Amino acid sequence: MAVNLDLAPAACVAGVELATVSAGLKADGTADMVVAMLADTAVTTAVFTQNTFCAAPVTLCREYLNVNGGAVRALLINSGNANAGTGQPGIAMARGHCQALASALSVPVESVLPFSTGVIGQLLPDERMRAGIARAASELAQRGVDQASDSTPDAALKYWDDAARGIMTTDTHPKLTSQVVMIAGSPVTITGMAKGAGMIQPNMATMLSYVFTDAAIDLKDLSEALRSVVDVSFNAITVDSDTSTNDACVLVATGVGEALDSTQVEWPTFMSALTKVCTDLAQGIIRDAEGATKFISVHVSGGNDTAECKRVAYAIANSPLVKTAMFASDANVGRLLMAIGKADIKDLDASGVTVRLGDVLAFENAGIASGYTEERGAAVMSEDEIDVHVDLGRGATAASVYTSDLSHDYVSINADYRS
Amino acid sequence: MAVNLDLAPAACVAGVELATVSAGLKADGTADMVVAMLADTAVTTAVFTQNTFCAAPVTLCREYLNVNGGAVRALLINSGNANAGTGQPGIAMARGHCQALASALSVPVESVLPFSTGVIGQLLPDERMRAGIARAASELAQRGVDQASDSTPDAALKYWDDAARGIMTTDTHPKLTSQVVMIAGSPVTITGMAKGAGMIQPNMATMLSYVFTDAAIDLKDLSEALRSVVDVSFNAITVDSDTSTNDACVLVATGVGEALDSTQVEWPTFMSALTKVCTDLAQGIIRDAEGATKFISVHVSGGNDTAECKRVAYAIANSPLVKTAMFASDANVGRLLMAIGKADIKDLDASGVTVRLGDVLAFENAGIASGYTEERGAAVMSEDEIDVHVDLGRGATAASVYTSDLSHDYVSINADYRS
Repeated sequence: MAVNLDLAPAACVAGVELATVSAGLKADGTADMVVAMLADTAVTTAVFTQNTFCAAPVTLCREYLNVNGGAVRALLINSGNANAGTGQPGIAMARGHCQALASALSVPVESVLPFSTGVIGQLLPDERMRAGIARAASELAQRGVDQASDSTPDAALKYWDDAARGIMTTDTHPKLTSQVVMIAGSPVTITGMAKGAGMIQPNMATMLSYVFTDAAIDLKDLSEALRSVVDVSFNAITVDSDTSTNDACVLVATGVGEALDSTQVEWPTFMSALTKVCTDLAQGIIRDAEGATKFISVHVSGGNDTAECKRVAYAIANSPLVKTAMFASDANVGRLLMAIGKADIKDLDASGVTVRLGDVLAFENAGIASGYTEERGAAVMSEDEIDVHVDLGRGATAASVYTSDLSHDYVSINADYRS
Repeated sequence: MAVNLDLAPAACVAGVELATVSAGLKADGTADMVVAMLADTAVTTAVFTQNTFCAAPVTLCREYLNVNGGAVRALLINSGNANAGTGQPGIAMARGHCQALASALSVPVESVLPFSTGVIGQLLPDERMRAGIARAASELAQRGVDQASDSTPDAALKYWDDAARGIMTTDTHPKLTSQVVMIAGSPVTITGMAKGAGMIQPNMATMLSYVFTDAAIDLKDLSEALRSVVDVSFNAITVDSDTSTNDACVLVATGVGEALDSTQVEWPTFMSALTKVCTDLAQGIIRDAEGATKFISVHVSGGNDTAECKRVAYAIANSPLVKTAMFASDANVGRLLMAIGKADIKDLDASGVTVRLGDVLAFENAGIASGYTEERGAAVMSEDEIDVHVDLGRGATAASVYTSDLSHDYVSINADYRS
């Protein structure tokens, strides 16, 4: 029951081979392990959760990226178990799984990045993981042999769709999308996948998100590109204000295609397409958020800096009272004021603040706007896409944050998650 | 359906006369206006919300307290409408209502403090307010005449119970309690009432709370007493992380009884009783929180300072995922770790943190504690009173925060509130 989740169609990225299997980590037996094999020309950068209790795979990713210089050959992703809060045994186990995949693919262990998502505080089932890894590696090897048989675009695209499903937990739909741009007369493809649904207020990354391009880009440009894009995409969403222990956002340039660097005139074209992929995926996470019945965009302008605009936007987007009012299609302007007012913005002058619901001016001069009626507000709130505009009336910067409503289904999903 | 809301019985405070009427502000016609008339010896101090969009009555209270030096003769309290987000018209109206009550009681306008709670963003119905004020004032005058007829303790106590009901909004039970201590051989009574239920994460005050004592205390001692007590009572609770526009906590010393100052040996006895009244009221708000099925105490110790202990405690207490797990009686230690980890405590060493559910050690050395089982955790979580203990393992300070769970009823109550 995602809210208008309508992503641009996906295309394969040359230099990435995907295998998805059911390792038996999820109780329902659906796919729960994805292995991505990358071309030996690939350069990879990533950002991770700022949560103190970061998961074992996050710790290992940081360690491996520190020594491999971006030379990553494989991603090992499992859903159903987060391998977080598992101490040294959890780290040792993840290291063993990376080693197993590295041996099977004949690549160095530090070129294998592990990722996990699911229940926190339980050790991974070691045997099932190893059996799943062996099966995925064998499938990739077999595919190399049979390459001719499945080289049709549709067949290859199915691997991407399977992978987007394999990383899901409480998501109801896979999130997979592409943009293709022309660089120096050649097409460059950017394809991303993400999973989210709950425990979503990423801090420098989101739950799990993987973006691939066939362009050849060096590590410095690639890292700067990722950092600038996550600020307006994955770092601008919230379901429930809760920051996961396992957030990771990975950007891979396989280097199989066109060479590209930040001094080229085409760089803004590439950045624009990358931003589109990441923004669509991030907003897709919200559209498919746990229990979501509305997609809410909170736009805050007129601030002194981006930080205070985001602070106000998150105060609104995380307020349980605002979110329950959204669920009820209730034009409760008072709760919006409450949320703006609790954001602790120093010296904010209430009389300079304006609030609009969609195009309807609701609040100005410290009071309800003349001409505003409940009926006009209710008409905006009855839609499943709601825009809230707040102008702080004191500066020139702006920021947007995207969120879902708080429904009975959110409570049901999270009260029942482990049972 | 409050959770074990069992307050010590109330006693009247000499020097306070209460009248409660139905002014027609609440749709269901129940009592919604309370007038408290105070002895001319009374000294009053108060703390208010830090919300930028503070309500008109909060603005007026601050203005009047700045000029009256604590000489307050009446409190005018209404429920059903918050008079917040109402701009200059809201302030003018509240000032007119204070003037009306001041005239009826023959006291200066700046000695009348106004308080409102309820829906935000709508002007008060002026005529109904004025009619209610006239009725309450007339009832107080009549009572002076008929004093003999209702001078029994039970009859007088009924006025206090009516007032505690008259300030309620979505509360299901009145919160009214007393402590009596002996000061220099004479009894000193402290009686408080509070309302809460939702939009509760007070910042220097709570929704509406009134505490009265018959002791004679000067303004400086009284103000310092209130500020120190709210830190461990009203400023240590949260229902939904949302800070109201109307929070106010008022402490009145009527001066009819024993004189008391902070240099006396009995001062700690008085402070201890005042703390008990405020803590019981604050925790009473949580026990009667919107949709509450559990009363949850989050104790954080081993911190470098109180601020970081409270920050961790609030991160846990405000996490929707922790609160839905509590609702489900799910011993989800992973969500507790997530919440501690997102609290952004600088240089927190995950391996030094321990987590206990009740007396059951659940997490230590960065992993699930040996000997911990789901069954032992579940036994603690099945109770309706749950203690979570977190030790940060790096300092000697501690703080506690009290909260409720996030249930379907919370969503229902707040999705339906204005309809």
